[in-house]
Amino acid sequence: MISVVLLGTGNVSQNLYSAFSGAKGVEVEQVVGRSAQLPDFIGDTTNYTNDFNKILAADVYIIAVSDNAISEVSLALKKGDGIVVHTSGATSMEILSSHQNRGVFYPLQTFTKGKMLSFETIPICIEASADNHLQQLEHLGKTISNNVLEINSEKRNSLHVSAVFANNFTNYLYALAEEICVAQNLDFSILKPLINETAAKIASMSPKKAQTGPAKRGDLETVHSHLQTITDKHQREIYILLSNAIKEQHGKEL
Amino acid sequence: MISVVLLGTGNVSQNLYSAFSGAKGVEVEQVVGRSAQLPDFIGDTTNYTNDFNKILAADVYIIAVSDNAISEVSLALKKGDGIVVHTSGATSMEILSSHQNRGVFYPLQTFTKGKMLSFETIPICIEASADNHLQQLEHLGKTISNNVLEINSEKRNSLHVSAVFANNFTNYLYALAEEICVAQNLDFSILKPLINETAAKIASMSPKKAQTGPAKRGDLETVHSHLQTITDKHQREIYILLSNAIKEQHGKEL
Repeated sequence: MISVVLLGTGNVSQNLYSAFSGAKGVEVEQVVGRSAQLPDFIGDTTNYTNDFNKILAADVYIIAVSDNAISEVSLALKKGDGIVVHTSGATSMEILSSHQNRGVFYPLQTFTKGKMLSFETIPICIEASADNHLQQLEHLGKTISNNVLEINSEKRNSLHVSAVFANNFTNYLYALAEEICVAQNLDFSILKPLINETAAKIASMSPKKAQTGPAKRGDLETVHSHLQTITDKHQREIYILLSNAIKEQHGKEL
Repeated sequence: MISVVLLGTGNVSQNLYSAFSGAKGVEVEQVVGRSAQLPDFIGDTTNYTNDFNKILAADVYIIAVSDNAISEVSLALKKGDGIVVHTSGATSMEILSSHQNRGVFYPLQTFTKGKMLSFETIPICIEASADNHLQQLEHLGKTISNNVLEINSEKRNSLHVSAVFANNFTNYLYALAEEICVAQNLDFSILKPLINETAAKIASMSPKKAQTGPAKRGDLETVHSHLQTITDKHQREIYILLSNAIKEQHGKEL
């Protein structure tokens, strides 16, 4: 049985709490938060504290807080025998250097307030300062996920960059698509089956091969007709930049 | 029973053929293609021709060809009583002006070679030159889809622009994410659960509200660290432009 203390009460912590609570071989000993009151998501049988002097002994301390708070929480946490890990894609393991036993436990997923995801398919990227700790983190990861991977800080940084493209930027394109719909009194939900299929398509096909659209085809007439209807500055800039990049990738000049 | 002649043998035509073949109240009388041989996807009991002089009488003629071929196919098709429609998001109905009875039957989806989709949730955007034809197209659409919408050419053009953002550009971001992974010997499939959840999230949440990431948070440190790892020109340009646009949308300057 691996014992865990979760530090933080945000989306990642809530999701981990929920996943560990339903898993075998792991027990959440305690949750540590800022609030004096017990947060809603924590069951009555779980110890909760907002006092860093009352943190219980555990095998793994998971700092699941926003990137800019990791250092502060890490320094406030007393040195012990357990492994101290953070859950950040963009942060080096060395931010935890005050702890001899340190690591990373990064679930590569986007978490939403109040929406508990199944961790089964969520990749958990682990890193540790020693082999035996890596094994323990692997063991912990496997209690909730079928996809636990050792990824060092440098590779994790690249993975995080690619996640920004695939998640943050993609979501922003959805937001622009919604803006365009709203401006024409069109219901954005008309686009949802298309959005789902766009994501589903690459399950079995490389996105480069899946590319379609006027820019890919070199269909200048449609590109120009689109640019006539796009009046928003950001939308135009993004339309032009991405269309040119697609053209270049597919070997034709607009 | 509505009778249909399908002109074209590409992904859209194949998907419509498959959907109509499994639907009640509609019959595909004939498929018209360029090839002298019967294309694989057509059943033995369906009439096939590559001769425009042998086109059968039907209620609806669906021109499902690439945008730049619509005009040619339309002009080659003899004038008759049936309604002539195209399936293009980016093309005005008036390209069919040589036919008195004309319309648009635009399934808003991305179709892949050999992958037959269920049309049930696919929005079909219809437009017609007369009310009774509109009703007939609505009737036809409803044989395969629960989401048939009257959309005029102007709105359809905007819908197509937003579909380019939500589908073509999104797919290109997936391709960039794949490039970044490949350059670091990382398996792109690690990102697939994230990509699926990014799309799934907006089923119940506006994308503007769902926005996350360093640009949204104003996390300059992470943005700069990412820019240090991105060496590719296109990736950098797109990273900077989209990050700035997200910041501006969310009220902070980078």
